[in-house]
Amino acid sequence: MKVTSLKGTRDFDPLQVCRRNFIIDNIKEVFCQFGFVPIQTPAMEHLDVLLGKYGTEGDQLVFKIINSGDFLSKCSSEDFTNGSRSVLPKITKKGLRYDLTVPFARYVVNHQHELYFPFKRYQIQPVWRADRPQKGRYQEFYQCDADVIGTESSICETEIIWMISEVFKKLGITDYQILINNRKLLAAIAEKLGMADHLQTLCVAIDKLDKIGQQKVLEELSDKGFSTASLEILQPILDLTKGTKDHWEFLKAYLVDIDSAQKGFEELQEIMDNLAALKLDKVPLKFDPLLARGLNYYTGPIFEVQILNSKVGSVSGGGRYDNLTEVFGLKGISGVGFSFGMDRLYDAMDELNLFPVLNANNTTVLIVNFGLEGHMERLQQLQLLRNYNINAELYPDATKPKKQLTYANKKQIPWVVFIGEHELQQQVALVKNMKNGTQEEVKLSQLPTYFDERARKLD
Amino acid sequence: MKVTSLKGTRDFDPLQVCRRNFIIDNIKEVFCQFGFVPIQTPAMEHLDVLLGKYGTEGDQLVFKIINSGDFLSKCSSEDFTNGSRSVLPKITKKGLRYDLTVPFARYVVNHQHELYFPFKRYQIQPVWRADRPQKGRYQEFYQCDADVIGTESSICETEIIWMISEVFKKLGITDYQILINNRKLLAAIAEKLGMADHLQTLCVAIDKLDKIGQQKVLEELSDKGFSTASLEILQPILDLTKGTKDHWEFLKAYLVDIDSAQKGFEELQEIMDNLAALKLDKVPLKFDPLLARGLNYYTGPIFEVQILNSKVGSVSGGGRYDNLTEVFGLKGISGVGFSFGMDRLYDAMDELNLFPVLNANNTTVLIVNFGLEGHMERLQQLQLLRNYNINAELYPDATKPKKQLTYANKKQIPWVVFIGEHELQQQVALVKNMKNGTQEEVKLSQLPTYFDERARKLD
Repeated sequence: MKVTSLKGTRDFDPLQVCRRNFIIDNIKEVFCQFGFVPIQTPAMEHLDVLLGKYGTEGDQLVFKIINSGDFLSKCSSEDFTNGSRSVLPKITKKGLRYDLTVPFARYVVNHQHELYFPFKRYQIQPVWRADRPQKGRYQEFYQCDADVIGTESSICETEIIWMISEVFKKLGITDYQILINNRKLLAAIAEKLGMADHLQTLCVAIDKLDKIGQQKVLEELSDKGFSTASLEILQPILDLTKGTKDHWEFLKAYLVDIDSAQKGFEELQEIMDNLAALKLDKVPLKFDPLLARGLNYYTGPIFEVQILNSKVGSVSGGGRYDNLTEVFGLKGISGVGFSFGMDRLYDAMDELNLFPVLNANNTTVLIVNFGLEGHMERLQQLQLLRNYNINAELYPDATKPKKQLTYANKKQIPWVVFIGEHELQQQVALVKNMKNGTQEEVKLSQLPTYFDERARKLD
Repeated sequence: MKVTSLKGTRDFDPLQVCRRNFIIDNIKEVFCQFGFVPIQTPAMEHLDVLLGKYGTEGDQLVFKIINSGDFLSKCSSEDFTNGSRSVLPKITKKGLRYDLTVPFARYVVNHQHELYFPFKRYQIQPVWRADRPQKGRYQEFYQCDADVIGTESSICETEIIWMISEVFKKLGITDYQILINNRKLLAAIAEKLGMADHLQTLCVAIDKLDKIGQQKVLEELSDKGFSTASLEILQPILDLTKGTKDHWEFLKAYLVDIDSAQKGFEELQEIMDNLAALKLDKVPLKFDPLLARGLNYYTGPIFEVQILNSKVGSVSGGGRYDNLTEVFGLKGISGVGFSFGMDRLYDAMDELNLFPVLNANNTTVLIVNFGLEGHMERLQQLQLLRNYNINAELYPDATKPKKQLTYANKKQIPWVVFIGEHELQQQVALVKNMKNGTQEEVKLSQLPTYFDERARKLD
């Protein structure tokens, strides 16, 4: 029988859990400071809530759950002959969430009458994607999302960049850059190419530029109906990666004849003006006209955060979406949000040695077990210590003291207490300091205060 | 398109998340105090890790995930004709975890060389069961588990009961009872019936006694091969629910001729002696020879916690298992653990009005938005407040102040700050106390310290 976790998923040991909580707690603290409140949604959603929001590839990566009971009952042999695609919709109705944004949009529509707008929510939960497992890419990973819905104000985008810089300050991450672009500018480019209706195709292709290179992007667009003439117009945009041109000035000139581009520039300018007023000028914000983001639903400013000098790459991203709640029946509500990929942040911090010293074990005192003789008294001492809020353990078995000391060492327990026959007669305990090896006798009646003082100093 | 969550699953609003965290944080605190360390395992496991551990009914309640891609490729038309049972193993390899104990056993075997024994771990994560949704029964719910593995010491059972009483003290739950029994006594009963090999069948039937009644339990056992003679011997045990006999003394007499019962009684006696030494005599522990627990893997003491005067019923349970890691290839390791059903605790606390006043919103100050004029100055004031660790928001849109005040009220934000044209000229802010409606002018330069002092008082 298999004893490993599934490929693409991981077990977390106590230290890893502590480190993960260290990241999550810091993110939570910043979200709270900025006025965001927590919600949670279920791991499973109706499949039709999930599908159609992440593009064709995304739909395939949604984990689907087999209906309970006689799940084949709705399948005809014709379905079976037609294969997986025909059978699939008849044997599954539920999927695991792929991100937190779509469940959030569903939540907002579902609970619109209980909410006050603008609604600022944060959500920290795992998501699942049936991606091919590889180093740094997991099938189960945590997202930490913050979204504001019900306002078009550029203050929100400003605050997202501000929050990213605050979180990174807390985590000790100094070398990173925040790429920013606007889907409205990508739309203007599509318009200039005469392909206004194919914005999504353009974004999906450009999003892969880093991975597959210029040639393949051009081929993909050509395959999807972009004419040679249109791709020639696109060429200078793709070439931006190579040159040292000022991207902002270049794009302004390039899109000078496209009226709709104006709003895209204005929105970004507003955000940058806000950041300048906040003197957040050390925040490494970089305009990148080739930042596209794969997801379907963005309509305004988009951003992505990369940690430099790390193999991890992008650890956060987000953007504005104007129509996401519309598919669930609520029109005219603009939202903007972003997500930290917690697992990637973890990997980057691990790689860059940024974690502080954390100890998963909170035990302050281990009482050595000597068996039946004095058992009840040792139990009572354990209770007295715990009543003083001192985290204490009584070793469960009367094994050799050496083994018990090894346990204390492995768990990094700072003090070990011996209360044997001799000590009980004298009403004392022998206290061993595990850090420096010193021992001293302490009156049993003074044991709790002895550790109470010392445990405070440890904190 | 559906906008609700799936039946049996729930969305949690900010207050609910806070209340859930209140329960979880208190449980965590007790687990830590007793020396338990956290681990986490993935939501999905290999199906063969999960199946065969929870009985036939349990296996059916495990959510199964469809293989990615062309999942039907391994199915012949013969499989299809044979129906769901033949097709199922060919289209799924993964399931959602059903509890935290089995993944923990798998974890222990997988990581045995990194662990020190006895290993005390806690784990707080959701689990999923394809139960028919009904009031108080969910398809997704949180378990809070603590287990000790690698020791047979009765100190562990003692501490479990001790921890339950500590957690309930923290949560304000006073009316409850902890039922305790020993699978070894149920095994002795099976032996007395001449059905020693059918312990599991006996346990599964007895476990339903409350739900289906004595008659149906007898029918079920009869169907499963228990002779009339054996059921007659069982009768006085089933009748215990009716009478007022001392269960302990009765069972001792009843099992007097079964040698193997001795160890069962001794184990329980040890636990009770320990509790007596700790003067935990207010812990409402009750010996219940009819407590059976449905799960396959228990072999020693078992317990279950019921909240009295509540519709919720059982909120916690657990027991000792001697062979759970054996199925994963690691023999001779005894473990014991228990689990709080967090959602049931929540429902009970809600029903009994035990939650303290909690506010999901942490914002202390809302700055009113007056549009472009003075925008940058207000942003800068927001930043100054946040630099003083005061949780503050700038309302994102320049809507009517009345609407912005309503937002502050809904979010229970205690102070609203007006910095309009007039105030900027005077370098002051008008501060409105939302609780008593009073207003006062504060110099802009003194705003952070003004709130710093007041926010401290709020805590």
